[in-house]
Amino acid sequence: MRNVKLTLAYDGTRFLGWQKTNEGPSIEQELETVLGKILQEKTVLQATSRTDAGVHARGQIVNFRTEKLIPTDKLHLSLCCLLPKDVVVIAVEEVHENFHPTLDVAGKEYHYWMCTDTFQYPEHRLYSWHYPYSLDLNIMQEAAESLIGTHDFSAFCNLKKNQEYEHCIREVKDIRILPIDKRLRFEIVGKSFLYKMVRNLVGSMVCVGRGKIAAKEFMKILETKDRRLAGVTAPAHGLILHETFYS
Amino acid sequence: MRNVKLTLAYDGTRFLGWQKTNEGPSIEQELETVLGKILQEKTVLQATSRTDAGVHARGQIVNFRTEKLIPTDKLHLSLCCLLPKDVVVIAVEEVHENFHPTLDVAGKEYHYWMCTDTFQYPEHRLYSWHYPYSLDLNIMQEAAESLIGTHDFSAFCNLKKNQEYEHCIREVKDIRILPIDKRLRFEIVGKSFLYKMVRNLVGSMVCVGRGKIAAKEFMKILETKDRRLAGVTAPAHGLILHETFYS
Repeated sequence: MRNVKLTLAYDGTRFLGWQKTNEGPSIEQELETVLGKILQEKTVLQATSRTDAGVHARGQIVNFRTEKLIPTDKLHLSLCCLLPKDVVVIAVEEVHENFHPTLDVAGKEYHYWMCTDTFQYPEHRLYSWHYPYSLDLNIMQEAAESLIGTHDFSAFCNLKKNQEYEHCIREVKDIRILPIDKRLRFEIVGKSFLYKMVRNLVGSMVCVGRGKIAAKEFMKILETKDRRLAGVTAPAHGLILHETFYS
Repeated sequence: MRNVKLTLAYDGTRFLGWQKTNEGPSIEQELETVLGKILQEKTVLQATSRTDAGVHARGQIVNFRTEKLIPTDKLHLSLCCLLPKDVVVIAVEEVHENFHPTLDVAGKEYHYWMCTDTFQYPEHRLYSWHYPYSLDLNIMQEAAESLIGTHDFSAFCNLKKNQEYEHCIREVKDIRILPIDKRLRFEIVGKSFLYKMVRNLVGSMVCVGRGKIAAKEFMKILETKDRRLAGVTAPAHGLILHETFYS
């Protein structure tokens, strides 16, 4: 059985997220439908990240298995032709039969874009949070540094219906906040994240930047494990799954 | 009579262009409707550039006259609240009574984005031409340099219905072609341009980059004044009116 790995980029704007649902369009459903047309069989897709409604990706990794002998370059071309314009296959590779997109992950890098200027350019409106208030970047950097490391991130996790984690201990490997062309880009690297954790970390750092939470409080908030004490959830459309790493 | 100058940015995707038409939405119509609500009077708008359907802007300059005494900062705020998300007012200024957005222009800078990679990121699809073929940048630069200066640009002008120019002599002050993050940005500066001239210059430079027209032919094509000899018209969605200059 061939094991095929896809690297996907998508504009999450019109989707209810990666995962199939009866409520509306999903990236998984689009891809499954198109693969069905090409391979003339039903495929089971596994994805590295179940991105939420409105979240974008440049480095979503997906795999499926097939007996069909279509070469990867031909498969790539067919996918490019048949997928809608907001879903783009960046790479198609045949990988070791044991490769698993979730279990083998060494790390993921998320980017979060925001604009704190009075106005945001219209072409950024679907990919960047417009928050027209001045933020203290130095204090935000200080808060970010206190988050790096292995902690119980319960205070930064929204519980999803029917979702239970064995524990909420995660390692945040790095957080960088870069000013780029009148906008900010948060770069957040870790092995895995809790539900809405990245958006909660960003929203909380923004609260720190606005002076609503003291940077020193961050360690205490982590210790309380109380979601109500951390900051707001930053909106989905500023978030992009930038890259997935395998060792 | 107060003379009010607006600097506009817009995403041209869903519009039939700047100018009002009965055929569908225009940026002029959106702005006129919103100004009518704010000022409770009909305004006559004059714009620096009548951008085409699908063309974007960051530096469109518009003016109108009013007797109403609303301060410019309040007008700016009201415009931001009432305009649709794809039209953004960057600045509102009260200017000299004689200021005219077209007659006083010292220059305009257009940018044209394109991606020559196999795939284009989905968030660029509405703002950048996807042309997945390799181009010879050196030869394109050579062709670009031969276009700089004052020439009769008839060969690069599409005639618009009922449009007559006194003459087709224009000055192209600069053309730069920059590779930026796997894409190309053409930066084209001039005082004024003929109908579709920027898109025709880009399309022709691309034909040169592909080896379909020799760079040396460019001067000859200018001399023939024959539109059929120059290259294709690059699609509208890669073009953005970047900036308008006044002396």
